[in-house]
Amino acid sequence: LKIAILLFDRFTALDAVGPYEVLVRIPGAEVTFVATQRGEVRTDTGRFGLTADAALSELTDPDIVVVPGGPGQVQAMADPEILDWLRAVDATTKWTTSVCTGSIILAAAGLLDGKKATTHWIAYDELQKLGVEPTSDRVVFQGKYVTAAGVSSGIDMALRLVAEELGDFVAQAIQLGIEYDPQPPFDAGAPGKAPAEVEGFLRDNSRFLKEGA
Amino acid sequence: LKIAILLFDRFTALDAVGPYEVLVRIPGAEVTFVATQRGEVRTDTGRFGLTADAALSELTDPDIVVVPGGPGQVQAMADPEILDWLRAVDATTKWTTSVCTGSIILAAAGLLDGKKATTHWIAYDELQKLGVEPTSDRVVFQGKYVTAAGVSSGIDMALRLVAEELGDFVAQAIQLGIEYDPQPPFDAGAPGKAPAEVEGFLRDNSRFLKEGA
Repeated sequence: LKIAILLFDRFTALDAVGPYEVLVRIPGAEVTFVATQRGEVRTDTGRFGLTADAALSELTDPDIVVVPGGPGQVQAMADPEILDWLRAVDATTKWTTSVCTGSIILAAAGLLDGKKATTHWIAYDELQKLGVEPTSDRVVFQGKYVTAAGVSSGIDMALRLVAEELGDFVAQAIQLGIEYDPQPPFDAGAPGKAPAEVEGFLRDNSRFLKEGA
Repeated sequence: LKIAILLFDRFTALDAVGPYEVLVRIPGAEVTFVATQRGEVRTDTGRFGLTADAALSELTDPDIVVVPGGPGQVQAMADPEILDWLRAVDATTKWTTSVCTGSIILAAAGLLDGKKATTHWIAYDELQKLGVEPTSDRVVFQGKYVTAAGVSSGIDMALRLVAEELGDFVAQAIQLGIEYDPQPPFDAGAPGKAPAEVEGFLRDNSRFLKEGA
């Protein structure tokens, strides 16, 4: 399986690294980080970069594509090179997937027209504007299109994808390998679960909303 | 708060990026990836690298240190530059933490002598050999020393650390910000929970055990 994870300036690191850490454990999988150019791509906090080992033009036949989100999604969804590449590779992928606001990039490429999809909870409206039906499910399968909710959800998405593609044994082995037995300290990880004042604080201070994505 | 996340050749990406994605959202936090030299540090799969923006000698006063694990832990725990740096910064940290086999590096530096700690479930024996009492708890607080279980546990560890240091509101806001409402497809993320044949498969095929860490 050839797996391509798209990087773009100011992506959110965990959006990409969560699914990577699952998918790279598929026996025989070949995972490559791709970007418009080879080399370092800085994350949304500017604190570090990840290396893209291939340019988009060098990887044109992935079986699985993963598109992370992050504030840089605003520029990525307006970049014809990225949109053209997504449309081109989607023609032959087995799975086209996203985490967080990565689904908005897929939507901008026209790949989610009329479908249900999810994204970070603060960005549901953006999907709707692009002709996509937002849902609050953590992972949404629509044929070969799989979208996941905010940031940390890519781990759940990737495990479900492995189970679909390779069966429960492989998915469970990977889950145990990364010791994914989550024990969050609060039941506060989704709107409606977190205290109202916490949700209000995030809505008032959202970098995402401020940048007008 | 100055936060240093240690990178070393062949670390496991999610060990480092999980806690990073939580801690970087602390208001005013300054998160820096550090390594023996500035520049790219390759992950355990060789598939990509993360950029260390500072050399160890350039960051000597972090409030929080995070040590990830990964197969390269074997070399890291024998590297005097890394061990000396850990001992030196530990003298003034508020929190000294690890994810996965990162605790074995802390133990090699002598920082966990006689304490309880955790690590990846496949590596409990290694802690014991170094005079540390292994436990299977997902996150273990022993004064300012906080160790977390395998790979994905760093997210839980970091959220608990934020709650301890800054209170529940900030921790919940970060949890909601990264939409950490985990929904793993199986209850297979810890030994004793996964089917016995899955656990046996991993024990038989562990890269960790093969490399003799």
